[in-house]
Amino acid sequence: MGRTLTYPKRDANTVHRYKHRATYDLDAIHSIINASQVLHVSFSPGPSDPFPAILPMIGQMGSFDYPSAGLDEPLDCYLHGYVSSRIMNLARSSEGDGLPICIAASKVDGLILSLTPNSHSFNYRSAILHGYAKLVTDEAEKLWAMKLITNSIVPERWENTRVPPDNAEMSSTVILKVKVVDGSGKIRDGGVSDERKDKTNEDVTSRVWTGVVPVYEVFGDPVPSPENKVSKVPDHITTYIAGMNKQNREYAENAVGVTLPVEEQH
Amino acid sequence: MGRTLTYPKRDANTVHRYKHRATYDLDAIHSIINASQVLHVSFSPGPSDPFPAILPMIGQMGSFDYPSAGLDEPLDCYLHGYVSSRIMNLARSSEGDGLPICIAASKVDGLILSLTPNSHSFNYRSAILHGYAKLVTDEAEKLWAMKLITNSIVPERWENTRVPPDNAEMSSTVILKVKVVDGSGKIRDGGVSDERKDKTNEDVTSRVWTGVVPVYEVFGDPVPSPENKVSKVPDHITTYIAGMNKQNREYAENAVGVTLPVEEQH
Repeated sequence: MGRTLTYPKRDANTVHRYKHRATYDLDAIHSIINASQVLHVSFSPGPSDPFPAILPMIGQMGSFDYPSAGLDEPLDCYLHGYVSSRIMNLARSSEGDGLPICIAASKVDGLILSLTPNSHSFNYRSAILHGYAKLVTDEAEKLWAMKLITNSIVPERWENTRVPPDNAEMSSTVILKVKVVDGSGKIRDGGVSDERKDKTNEDVTSRVWTGVVPVYEVFGDPVPSPENKVSKVPDHITTYIAGMNKQNREYAENAVGVTLPVEEQH
Repeated sequence: MGRTLTYPKRDANTVHRYKHRATYDLDAIHSIINASQVLHVSFSPGPSDPFPAILPMIGQMGSFDYPSAGLDEPLDCYLHGYVSSRIMNLARSSEGDGLPICIAASKVDGLILSLTPNSHSFNYRSAILHGYAKLVTDEAEKLWAMKLITNSIVPERWENTRVPPDNAEMSSTVILKVKVVDGSGKIRDGGVSDERKDKTNEDVTSRVWTGVVPVYEVFGDPVPSPENKVSKVPDHITTYIAGMNKQNREYAENAVGVTLPVEEQH
């Protein structure tokens, strides 16, 4: 469509440090959020508690009104939780737009081992979203979001389990819908970056190894439960595992981006 | 010493959901924090912003006054950052005890694939700390914390780089020291847990595969930088990679904890 949607830069989400690594693209930010198995959700517990709270939650970006929307389009963030948890109670009793929250996801892709401690770093992808959280009350939207979130663990898992949820399951589950106000992402890839003063110091370069250690997540062989009655691990699981193992490893290795100088390629 | 130190249970850190998975042990909580490459640190940006902020940071538990203290003893959390970042400015200008923050770390160890979407889960370890953050002003303590944090990326890395940091490096780096007020952890391990109504439903058990997919982080082969002059990857790196790859995989596989019933072992 020849356009790239970005989140507005406001005080709260503007990156000031290493600006060249910052992104405000919806596509990049939503991709990082959706690839995270666990999101950290921060909220203020109330005036009597000086500390912000952080809760690990499962969530996913999506649009109930426009289910075919791509990751580069405006989306809501749906978070899954238990009916009586503190964040759900706060969201339930919040007035106006909803409970103000911050959502964060980070993934390390490599260790950057350089000449000095200060130039050490990670290859990484991180994203944050700010938004207002409200409970989903429409049953059709709630069911749609539960399917979206279940299938983020393993695609097509919903269809391959006992569905739909019964009344008890529906009422013990609460889905938060977060209307996103702004967001930002930060992506670091590439190799080692050292300062000239160290790179030209032979005493340093002769004894300090520099390079990148790729870091990636691996899904191991599925272990059937003692009560499992299905002899073969289904395709929707094996296909996902194989695809993710390939994709995760390739991302971390490609992020290194080291191209040997011409004279060293022979 | 025959004692187990635990954090006090206060409103802010008491786990109400799946209480049997909760831990307040210093050892367990500090271990999860220290094993995390990235910590999510939440703080309130001030009265003009309704949203809490979350920043990905590198940090480590330690005690400058009692450097030999174990993970099961009271420790401070040291966080590494840039001199002009927002959290550092807020901590610098905070009065009294310091800036109230929340620190979170989570790690997924497995996918729990069960009969119904509601009984799906992760094996995971997560920890949160609440505390007051202040800038480290003592030069000896700052240097000590920088070494602690560098060596959390790869043990002995500090000694194998160009140290000590020069004046410019010392002044661009800021270390936050967090006096911990409380903390809690949550650990889920084991296999699939389904309800009786589904386990006894042959129509369900005959078509839904159940089990656990172990999830663990892998360090790939080190990729030397084009400017690296040290021919062999040093032992402090190869030893760490080999050890972590073994440990991470074993943790995820052991977390499954599936013991086949006696009649199925033959």
